[in-house]
Amino acid sequence: MAVRRYLVLATIFGLVGGVLTQEDWAAQLRGEMDPARIEEFLRILTEKPHMAGTQGGYELAEYVRQTWEDQGLDSARIAPYDVLLSYPHPDSPSYVALLDESGNEMFRSSVAGEPQLDVDPPFNISGVPPPFAAYSPSGVVEGNLVYVNYARTSDFDLLKSRGISVEGKIAIARYGKTSRGRKLRRAQDRGAIGMIVYSDPKEVVGTGSGKTKKYPDGWYAPGTAVQRGHYLYGVGEGEPLTPGYPATDYAYRIDQSDSDQLPTIPVHVIGYTDAMELLRHMGGPLVPSSWQGLLDIDYRFGPEMEGPASKVRLDVNVETEVRTVHNVVGIIRGREEPDRYVILGNHRDAWTFGGVDPNSGTACLLEITRVLGEMMRRGWRPRRTLMFVSWDAEEHGMHGSYEWIEEFGKIMSDRAVAYLNVDNAVRDDYTLRARATPSLKPLLKEAAKMVPWPTSTQDGNTLYEVWSKRSPQTSASDSPPKISLPAGASDYVPFVRRVGVPILDLAMVHRYTITYPNFPLYHTTYETFHLQKTYIDPHFKFHRLMSQLWGEVALSLAESWILPIDVSEYAGTVQEMYNWLDNWYRDKFEGSAISLDALQSAVANFTQAAMMIEDELSSMENNTDPLVARMYNDQLMQMERAFIDPQGILYQKFYRHTILSSGLWDTETFPALGDAVRRMGSDWTDPGKEDKLKEVKQELSIITFFIQSAANILAKPASTVF
Amino acid sequence: MAVRRYLVLATIFGLVGGVLTQEDWAAQLRGEMDPARIEEFLRILTEKPHMAGTQGGYELAEYVRQTWEDQGLDSARIAPYDVLLSYPHPDSPSYVALLDESGNEMFRSSVAGEPQLDVDPPFNISGVPPPFAAYSPSGVVEGNLVYVNYARTSDFDLLKSRGISVEGKIAIARYGKTSRGRKLRRAQDRGAIGMIVYSDPKEVVGTGSGKTKKYPDGWYAPGTAVQRGHYLYGVGEGEPLTPGYPATDYAYRIDQSDSDQLPTIPVHVIGYTDAMELLRHMGGPLVPSSWQGLLDIDYRFGPEMEGPASKVRLDVNVETEVRTVHNVVGIIRGREEPDRYVILGNHRDAWTFGGVDPNSGTACLLEITRVLGEMMRRGWRPRRTLMFVSWDAEEHGMHGSYEWIEEFGKIMSDRAVAYLNVDNAVRDDYTLRARATPSLKPLLKEAAKMVPWPTSTQDGNTLYEVWSKRSPQTSASDSPPKISLPAGASDYVPFVRRVGVPILDLAMVHRYTITYPNFPLYHTTYETFHLQKTYIDPHFKFHRLMSQLWGEVALSLAESWILPIDVSEYAGTVQEMYNWLDNWYRDKFEGSAISLDALQSAVANFTQAAMMIEDELSSMENNTDPLVARMYNDQLMQMERAFIDPQGILYQKFYRHTILSSGLWDTETFPALGDAVRRMGSDWTDPGKEDKLKEVKQELSIITFFIQSAANILAKPASTVF
Repeated sequence: MAVRRYLVLATIFGLVGGVLTQEDWAAQLRGEMDPARIEEFLRILTEKPHMAGTQGGYELAEYVRQTWEDQGLDSARIAPYDVLLSYPHPDSPSYVALLDESGNEMFRSSVAGEPQLDVDPPFNISGVPPPFAAYSPSGVVEGNLVYVNYARTSDFDLLKSRGISVEGKIAIARYGKTSRGRKLRRAQDRGAIGMIVYSDPKEVVGTGSGKTKKYPDGWYAPGTAVQRGHYLYGVGEGEPLTPGYPATDYAYRIDQSDSDQLPTIPVHVIGYTDAMELLRHMGGPLVPSSWQGLLDIDYRFGPEMEGPASKVRLDVNVETEVRTVHNVVGIIRGREEPDRYVILGNHRDAWTFGGVDPNSGTACLLEITRVLGEMMRRGWRPRRTLMFVSWDAEEHGMHGSYEWIEEFGKIMSDRAVAYLNVDNAVRDDYTLRARATPSLKPLLKEAAKMVPWPTSTQDGNTLYEVWSKRSPQTSASDSPPKISLPAGASDYVPFVRRVGVPILDLAMVHRYTITYPNFPLYHTTYETFHLQKTYIDPHFKFHRLMSQLWGEVALSLAESWILPIDVSEYAGTVQEMYNWLDNWYRDKFEGSAISLDALQSAVANFTQAAMMIEDELSSMENNTDPLVARMYNDQLMQMERAFIDPQGILYQKFYRHTILSSGLWDTETFPALGDAVRRMGSDWTDPGKEDKLKEVKQELSIITFFIQSAANILAKPASTVF
Repeated sequence: MAVRRYLVLATIFGLVGGVLTQEDWAAQLRGEMDPARIEEFLRILTEKPHMAGTQGGYELAEYVRQTWEDQGLDSARIAPYDVLLSYPHPDSPSYVALLDESGNEMFRSSVAGEPQLDVDPPFNISGVPPPFAAYSPSGVVEGNLVYVNYARTSDFDLLKSRGISVEGKIAIARYGKTSRGRKLRRAQDRGAIGMIVYSDPKEVVGTGSGKTKKYPDGWYAPGTAVQRGHYLYGVGEGEPLTPGYPATDYAYRIDQSDSDQLPTIPVHVIGYTDAMELLRHMGGPLVPSSWQGLLDIDYRFGPEMEGPASKVRLDVNVETEVRTVHNVVGIIRGREEPDRYVILGNHRDAWTFGGVDPNSGTACLLEITRVLGEMMRRGWRPRRTLMFVSWDAEEHGMHGSYEWIEEFGKIMSDRAVAYLNVDNAVRDDYTLRARATPSLKPLLKEAAKMVPWPTSTQDGNTLYEVWSKRSPQTSASDSPPKISLPAGASDYVPFVRRVGVPILDLAMVHRYTITYPNFPLYHTTYETFHLQKTYIDPHFKFHRLMSQLWGEVALSLAESWILPIDVSEYAGTVQEMYNWLDNWYRDKFEGSAISLDALQSAVANFTQAAMMIEDELSSMENNTDPLVARMYNDQLMQMERAFIDPQGILYQKFYRHTILSSGLWDTETFPALGDAVRRMGSDWTDPGKEDKLKEVKQELSIITFFIQSAANILAKPASTVF
């Protein structure tokens, strides 16, 4: 599909003799990406800490704006919002302490933040705020510890089956598997009085062969490194005080006590050196092997403490405050269709220096705009508008992008072709990790074929080849690469879940994405330029690769005559979601006399409509009427919007995408219906579940409707679907 | 504005020598409208009763579909929905009775429906279901009567000030001033056990000179005539069992007990002959003069009864049932922009014969399609698609149009240019009553200038002239005609309040629209072809006038190069809404330290953006690039959508238009903010009103945001608003 559309475009541009084709321009963009410049951008971006709402954050916003202006974009502007942020108390550090039977402190966790470590060239980390759990309430609690593993629902279920409760206790969890906010909410809902979250070596220390050293000698985490992060529960509300509306200067703000995103029990974060001191003083039964980390201790459930320790004190001093954050928006105005927007975005704020997260992405973005600026001076201008956005306050909960979408969501629904996100551009050099709305998957694969792999490997010469080998979708030898649906959390979330804008999210990652969902030094002070330059991408070749891929996709979307949005691929995904449901739950539905026929029909109708429009598009090669192309493109663009339910999905009213919002459970089907069937458990005949069964019926009806709506959008306009 | 755009179009078409211009086609459409054919359509349409969900209703749907097919539209299709309807019990009629002190019935209201009356030619009304209050629960209640005037909030306030309560009583109200559903809800909320609603002669009998006779000798209501109607509370939910989603065959339906639209106390409707029997037996103090109707009795509050009457029995037998209703959709596919829809709609279902409501409109619609079909045979085809919709179940609560919008709202948001509604086309021959979204007002005025007034009058020769004279906006001698905002209730409501589609609603009416908000025989059995032919529009000239006006507007929207959507007029309306607030409430806002500055700025920004795009459009006269025109037209179209809040407005979540939804109070400002300031009462300093004051602040912030959003949509695409 995407290939054909590239060719169509080439033909049209080729008609004009002597003029550069879109392929020529795309080759210029790929060819002129310069690793040395990317390195220099990253060095500047990571000089100082730049948390959202700080002076360092603002200065970097101004740097990006000025850079875009200097590079020659048509405009570059700072778009501010006033959002609720969270910071450690400047004078009273948070800590965890072990108390003996007299209530004296036997041990206190580090309060100064990660220690300075010698690196070459030397680098002063003293400006970094100490680790904290953002949005924790302040307070002091004392109690026994219960180890809750990853604090998943299944972990609490196991505790319950063992007769162990966190009620009145302090829960201690390791990072991984589930979001911070959900870990905390589960402990809070079960009556815990506080929570401690730590990084276990299991998740942050290398155990295999090869590079296993710890920072400052390698990529892995020393025991003093602490993962920061926000603990909002957030299911799509955006900034906590202005749910559903932009946090402008005139915005009405709810009281913090009325927000159901903010936690109510204190929480603190520590590294594994400190965690070990707590864990080794815990009593109670031994945990099962799947709960054990890699500390050299016996992991126990608690809540008893081993003498001389008697209990734990959690003293948290974290403040919330409304401050101004600064998105930066740069624009290259489209020549033929200025009102169609292809948006490239990356956040800029970092918990510390952002050597990986997010400024490896920012450096790539600035290199793309640099080359595009050069191309503009040579006469190039895209068919559609290119927008570049440097988001603020992503780390605090994607506030920059959420508020922008809350302000401009209607316009984006009308005009956005796609949103292309890169957060951590380069975490490692092994393979590409990609998320995409189904319709953009073919385009991404085509683009990856255009990008050379920058080092010598038997796995292939192009990104596509190496990626396919290292991250195959299936075990077949010729498997295409795996591309996930947009779960997770970065600035693409409001685009896809609120508005239904097709998205991509790209990162170069390490081998073991399951063991290390992020990377060991994620959100620690040691996420420095030194880390990137010394251990991840010394020659910035993988930064260049990411810039090339990102730019290639963007250019294709901005230039193609017919948009490279693949509706058949989308239909395939919807069919798979149906198949999963049918496979796992058909007997339950039948047992409850609920028919899946209407849903099955809607999926078939959508598939049929997708095939029909693809057929028509394949006859468009010789049609040069821009209004006809525009009408088809509008259908392709609006197809994704058809899945948006303004009422939101079940129990998550600010997630509006009925196909691509994540459910509260992790199912491989339609999110709200998947949640509803999970809530039914295994016995659907229990009369006590009547209300839950109604939800199943309702969600079945709703998803059927939205899939049919997408079919209707693809049907020939003014046809008899009405 | 509209004039200029007409000219632009003429120029472009004029380039093609010998081809008919749009003016030529428009003249054909106006010129070929035939009163005799309209009369014949109406005669057929009103032959039998055709309530929604009945055989008569279905047969008429099929008639309309077949007619459109025969006339040569590109397609004509029945679009069914399964909706909750309400009917009188076939065997147990509802009635009201007066009981004496022994509990014996002294008097029972008519149960057979309105009596057959002699008309020429004779006409059998025996198939008409008896009068009933649709959606009333069935039940028998007995109690004393309280007269509640029009059952407005102010009426209940007066009762309360007199120490009179409806609690445990049966309320009796006269029709007028406020909707049926709200009358009933207010009585229900105040503890009434039942309600009786009647038509007082004050509202349905002529008192002046001229034609004052009652049917069958004239236009006014005899005492046996009863106004039917639905008693749903409904604030935009659509059909009661599928709020927010279309009532398809696979739709999930909530339990009736979970609907907050359905009334919980029985209600019945009667004419003034029966009402007099009840009212003259009421005791208690005399009502004030403003509460008195024109029956020759003393109107009293109750609740005492005058002997020998002791109380009233209300015996209601009304059933609800899900049945299939049938919209009919006809399409003339656009030649250049088939994906832009100009929609003409009218409902088809009637409580009885529909001689006025709604089939005077249906007859006009069928005449428009007849002429357009002829024009198609001569080679005409519009630039944009024309859609014609014959709605079902409007009388039961606009179910046909609501469900259609619930099914196709997303597509309409993308593609609908305007929705043009005519319900009762001709109630009388005095003047035009028009409602419109602000942006369509100038177009409507221009169109009215093209339509000749069909009778001789000193007030003018065109519809525009007579309308301006008889319904002036101001008292100035050269005042333009008055056009109201889209309050009220007909099938345009879901278009404007759910989706933000610009709308018109047109009717020819009588002189005294205040005294007679509808017309005397509205929803009675006597709303026959005889009524229309003998007393309203004997020569169907005013039907022709309505067809001409409706067709002229539609053609202009379907053909104009730049859409005749006037954004400056819209800005003027928003400014007036601001001014009203500023005028009446600035001191209250200031007293509560709430600034109106942001709202004032947003209004100014919107006005400025409207002026700027109008300026650009005026330079479009020589631009023949269809893609450029399309981009401007998209902005004009989407401007109205900017006002749509997916979360809905305060306390009315299914009304989503922040400017044009009606508030619960009748204020001349932004509906939700207007409601919020009304809830504050006169003393804003009362600390008990803190929560209400928060609502004021929140609504101020919300409306400011949406007005600014509309300004952003009108700003040059890819400009620095982001």
